[in-house]
Amino acid sequence: MTMKLHCFGESGHSYKVAMALSMMDIEWEPVFVDFFKGASRSPEYRDLNIMGEAPVLQDGDLTLTQSGVILDYLSSKTGKMGGRSADARREVLRWMFFDNHKVSSIAGILRFQMNFLPEEKRNADVIGFLSARLAGALKTLDDQLTNHAWLAGDDITVADLSCAGYLFYPEAFTFDRKDYPHIDRWLDAIAAQPGWKPPYDLMQPAFAAPA
Amino acid sequence: MTMKLHCFGESGHSYKVAMALSMMDIEWEPVFVDFFKGASRSPEYRDLNIMGEAPVLQDGDLTLTQSGVILDYLSSKTGKMGGRSADARREVLRWMFFDNHKVSSIAGILRFQMNFLPEEKRNADVIGFLSARLAGALKTLDDQLTNHAWLAGDDITVADLSCAGYLFYPEAFTFDRKDYPHIDRWLDAIAAQPGWKPPYDLMQPAFAAPA
Repeated sequence: MTMKLHCFGESGHSYKVAMALSMMDIEWEPVFVDFFKGASRSPEYRDLNIMGEAPVLQDGDLTLTQSGVILDYLSSKTGKMGGRSADARREVLRWMFFDNHKVSSIAGILRFQMNFLPEEKRNADVIGFLSARLAGALKTLDDQLTNHAWLAGDDITVADLSCAGYLFYPEAFTFDRKDYPHIDRWLDAIAAQPGWKPPYDLMQPAFAAPA
Repeated sequence: MTMKLHCFGESGHSYKVAMALSMMDIEWEPVFVDFFKGASRSPEYRDLNIMGEAPVLQDGDLTLTQSGVILDYLSSKTGKMGGRSADARREVLRWMFFDNHKVSSIAGILRFQMNFLPEEKRNADVIGFLSARLAGALKTLDDQLTNHAWLAGDDITVADLSCAGYLFYPEAFTFDRKDYPHIDRWLDAIAAQPGWKPPYDLMQPAFAAPA
């Protein structure tokens, strides 16, 4: 049965899952969430996901939320891109928690502040604060990638897709690949995998730039 | 064998694990990390955890980091406070990812800004921004707890310990129990469990208040 992914293009968390579905060659279709117009705040959407977030994955009767949980589920279901032992699976989860705690959580709100919030509401102190936090987390990724081809093992795993999700977006959020040579090489290696596509090729954007 | 937890009192992520160890009646001992004096930035500590964070759990030869991974490990190992089916385990992981993404990640840096950073470095705009983010996440927790006794199932799980960790601290971080009646009731229910103790009863604080 075709899986359904409730998502929108700008959502890096949705993109991680869309990338996985595409790279794992799973049959799926996007269901567009008009996020910036409040679609995720409707009672119907809250019934689907009380957290009011995208993505939500529906696989038959099973409804899953949180990209980390969905990625873990997809790798278990397909046997692809996941740790095969309990130890290896924990190492994958470890980098997905790090991502949620320090990478995507910050990159997402920083990119929002710098691109999607009306200019008069943007705050330079907030942007500076978030930018310094993000740089620290990216330094950790770059350090890990200095002598590891992939974050969580000898081969690509969903931990790589999780941590890389936001880093494939074209909008400015104070991230420059040139500052992180190992991240730069690793992003190229992910993008060279069969089935990889950039975010807006997989999902419809929700933000209409002002005329 | 006695488990070792590398931790310090102010670390809410460490506290989640210390709470679990105490409530699961596991033999453990804290290893103090002098965090604010840079102990987690030493080469030795980076060898233990390249992420430079607390907590780190050592169980014999096994070294684990990220509170979400450690909590999942402890509940699997003991059969306590965890989802017993794959579905139930995913629901536990789901709330732990939400916590890392939106609750603890924000509460931690907000509490740091308001309490441990020298006053002249505190920034009202940053504090206001983080405070609004945290309020949104706490509203989601309160909503879930409106008609659920526990976050992720019929009984207490490590997801409750994860999401509640920072909320047991005495320092100000714009969280007031009175604003969230269901969170208030739920924190009391956690604190009433056998083995529960407040943070500074389980771990030594690293911050010495200026004279």
